[in-house]
Amino acid sequence: MEFNLPHTIALLSRTPATLNALLRDLPEAWTFHNEGENTWNAFEVVAHLIYGERADWIPRARIILQFGETRAFEPFDRQGHVQASQNKSLAQLLDEFARIRSESLDQLRALNLQPADFARRGRHPAFGPVTLSQHLASWAAHDLTHLHQISRIMAHQYREAVGPWRAYLGVLQCAGHSAP
Amino acid sequence: MEFNLPHTIALLSRTPATLNALLRDLPEAWTFHNEGENTWNAFEVVAHLIYGERADWIPRARIILQFGETRAFEPFDRQGHVQASQNKSLAQLLDEFARIRSESLDQLRALNLQPADFARRGRHPAFGPVTLSQHLASWAAHDLTHLHQISRIMAHQYREAVGPWRAYLGVLQCAGHSAP
Repeated sequence: MEFNLPHTIALLSRTPATLNALLRDLPEAWTFHNEGENTWNAFEVVAHLIYGERADWIPRARIILQFGETRAFEPFDRQGHVQASQNKSLAQLLDEFARIRSESLDQLRALNLQPADFARRGRHPAFGPVTLSQHLASWAAHDLTHLHQISRIMAHQYREAVGPWRAYLGVLQCAGHSAP
Repeated sequence: MEFNLPHTIALLSRTPATLNALLRDLPEAWTFHNEGENTWNAFEVVAHLIYGERADWIPRARIILQFGETRAFEPFDRQGHVQASQNKSLAQLLDEFARIRSESLDQLRALNLQPADFARRGRHPAFGPVTLSQHLASWAAHDLTHLHQISRIMAHQYREAVGPWRAYLGVLQCAGHSAP
């Protein structure tokens, strides 16, 4: 599929409700355990998604539109979510993600992007020229990367409990390529 | 985490709403495209989950409780979902999955399982002795395997659109170990 703005918004708009249905009020045995040292639990993934709304997706889209390739994006802080999530519950983060994602999509619609805009180029600090459509497609795929990661983190908690099924359940073979 | 029946039910009870939030009314570009030959699209995964409720999870739990290791489970038909999903929409399948999962969990609760029951053994046609707790833990992990798979199938549709981000998004590195 080529980049499609309505399809991208359709996906982005569903992620908060998806994570809410999956995670709200789930026992902490599922949501506050990670995959081992230097990995995230589901709570941290939601915090990271919130931080991305603040620091990455719409801010970088604006940089592309305003500065083109003349100004590289600010590097993204992979630990940026830590401070923002301190002393918050998972329920609070889920509410916050729903609110901030909705605001991001309002801002995206307000940009009133036209097909010619999608080819406009910006500059990523690590991998150089990127187009606006690549940036927006990555926003959607980034949601899916973290849904993929959360399902893997949670399955990891039952890696022993499943006994011989361990070798047959694909999610338990996933090597963690979507770790942060 | 060791097997825990309330934690297992908490996870199983959330999957229909999670898939509903993720998939209902999403453009078919996301839900009716697969990862290539002999792979499933999201529609087929939901159909497979429905078929598992009918043919696998509660039926096999009952076989363990009634027959122990003396009677192997019926082999599971990986194509069993095909006929059951013909001429149905994704919305119909999502409704059906919510209904049948709710019925399955009612049946599970009605079994009134006690801790001693979890060690009772049955016989899997492929990999031999399994305990009831391993069977029930696998039911939850199987949900997560397919959530992991659906997020990967959908991300696959944007594998070109994301441009240079392709190398950085974990879900696009996933080799498909959770294919059917």
